[in-house]
Amino acid sequence: MTSSSTSLAIGIDLGGTDIKGGLVAPDGAIVHQTLISTEAERGVDHVIDRIIHLARQLADQAADRGVELVGLGLGSPGTLSRSRGMVSAPPNLPGWRDVPIVERVAAATGLRVELDNDANYASWAEFRCGAGRGADSMVMLTLGTGIGSGIILDGKIVRGSHENAGELGHTIVQVDGRRCKCGQRGCLEAYASATQTAARMLEAIRAGEPSVLSPKAGAGGPIDAGMVAAAAADGDEVAGRIWRDTCRYLAAGCINIHHSLDPARIVLAGGMSAAGDQLLRPVVAEFDEMASNMLGGRPEIRLAQLGNDAGFVGAGLGVFERC
Amino acid sequence: MTSSSTSLAIGIDLGGTDIKGGLVAPDGAIVHQTLISTEAERGVDHVIDRIIHLARQLADQAADRGVELVGLGLGSPGTLSRSRGMVSAPPNLPGWRDVPIVERVAAATGLRVELDNDANYASWAEFRCGAGRGADSMVMLTLGTGIGSGIILDGKIVRGSHENAGELGHTIVQVDGRRCKCGQRGCLEAYASATQTAARMLEAIRAGEPSVLSPKAGAGGPIDAGMVAAAAADGDEVAGRIWRDTCRYLAAGCINIHHSLDPARIVLAGGMSAAGDQLLRPVVAEFDEMASNMLGGRPEIRLAQLGNDAGFVGAGLGVFERC
Repeated sequence: MTSSSTSLAIGIDLGGTDIKGGLVAPDGAIVHQTLISTEAERGVDHVIDRIIHLARQLADQAADRGVELVGLGLGSPGTLSRSRGMVSAPPNLPGWRDVPIVERVAAATGLRVELDNDANYASWAEFRCGAGRGADSMVMLTLGTGIGSGIILDGKIVRGSHENAGELGHTIVQVDGRRCKCGQRGCLEAYASATQTAARMLEAIRAGEPSVLSPKAGAGGPIDAGMVAAAAADGDEVAGRIWRDTCRYLAAGCINIHHSLDPARIVLAGGMSAAGDQLLRPVVAEFDEMASNMLGGRPEIRLAQLGNDAGFVGAGLGVFERC
Repeated sequence: MTSSSTSLAIGIDLGGTDIKGGLVAPDGAIVHQTLISTEAERGVDHVIDRIIHLARQLADQAADRGVELVGLGLGSPGTLSRSRGMVSAPPNLPGWRDVPIVERVAAATGLRVELDNDANYASWAEFRCGAGRGADSMVMLTLGTGIGSGIILDGKIVRGSHENAGELGHTIVQVDGRRCKCGQRGCLEAYASATQTAARMLEAIRAGEPSVLSPKAGAGGPIDAGMVAAAAADGDEVAGRIWRDTCRYLAAGCINIHHSLDPARIVLAGGMSAAGDQLLRPVVAEFDEMASNMLGGRPEIRLAQLGNDAGFVGAGLGVFERC
């Protein structure tokens, strides 16, 4: 995409493996983008230096174009406090604990810096420029290692009284069910994340169920959700059941979103959404079957459109807009 | 309560058994209140005539006091459309289907009439004058025949894209669980409403479990949730387990509200909240146990304070305020 905008924002998406960044126009167009590795194992200060390095590169790009930079949006894994500009205890960034990242990045770059949850920013990008465009409300589920989410009502991200809203992955869909890594039982994430879809497949194989994936289920097993989806598509019965169950739990999650918030759209994003219609169709079919007597309007369930760019695009947009 | 306000609103709460109404001051004070039977079995027109009759009585009361009436708020069981002023298919009002109730009551009384879900209005009253006072956000669960709910974020009721938000009783907490009367399986309401608490007790007795309530479990059984609570308090083991399970499911519901919306308060209302601390304490304890690793702030879980008045008080307040 190109843009002739005379003001741009830097959007940065901090992840456990990569840091993605870009120059984002007010309409969400990506003017320039880049990616560096996080090197999280080298500690907090090193990662912050890398963020600052990336920000300066992007600022140089903006200067070369002669455009004004309005600020920098930074999406980070949670837990974090947007209002205090602090990141604390993100699961994929070992050693991080109450890091005043906004203050440090702002001091080093001279830019106004805003911080939010990566899932919130990714949802905001889809809402403005992707699968949520034109809707007044949208809830997004990001299906990856865990299940992240973002809730947008009346054109605003719902953040909550303690800045902990939008953690739909840890809503309970099976009281006394599977143990989640958060410590609770029966979380949506404990069934329907990419990681747990693969884990349930591995458990089935280890229980002796026959599958084309059995030979791959070695010690710990290099089985991922994409392999389960592919085997299910090829007619493997066990993989088919595991995949169907994932879709069934996601449908229950979508039903719960509907009964709670009744958004215009529900968007499925993250690595698992690469399965496309193989994910979307059974989720919609299970939703319709489970809620067959539901009165009134239903959400439109869609796949995300912006892929891995959503995080930094949303972070950039968040600098221009009150999201 | 008394009020020296010079403007009042009529608040009316339409129920399957009674119609409650009152004159409500801008601060939620009840200036006058009254109750008549619904006589729902006599049909739609008869019930609307009774609402109009009650409204005129209340308007006369206002005239006697020499105060201005700013309008009439009407809370009704769902399904309904606030924007179109129509009530359709409320479960406790047989024969109602797309009834233009706002138009009819407004024409007969000459008043501006606003319509909303009874659970929304009751939540609004608690938010402004009861258990939610002082908070910026609140979710209320009304535990009765079913489980109604109201969601208030940033001082506004969440109504949804199709006016169907706030039906938390039908969120699924047990995929493939107990059948709910809505047709879904595993709804919160299918476990933790007053009706279903009594039903689970009856099922346990019929399965041969010994309880002090066994002699009462005749054909259909005149067992209600209050009897289960009382027997549990008296040390009856089966009743104790049934009651504990109700509280456990409610705790899961509260955890889901927290992870979704992170409100400042969660309020437990409705007939079952009469159990007081016998309800509140185990719900809070189960919440804390289930979410023992939860980071960050938690909601304050409280009992409702306004009892059966909440519905019409909220309806009256809704005329004064953008809720």
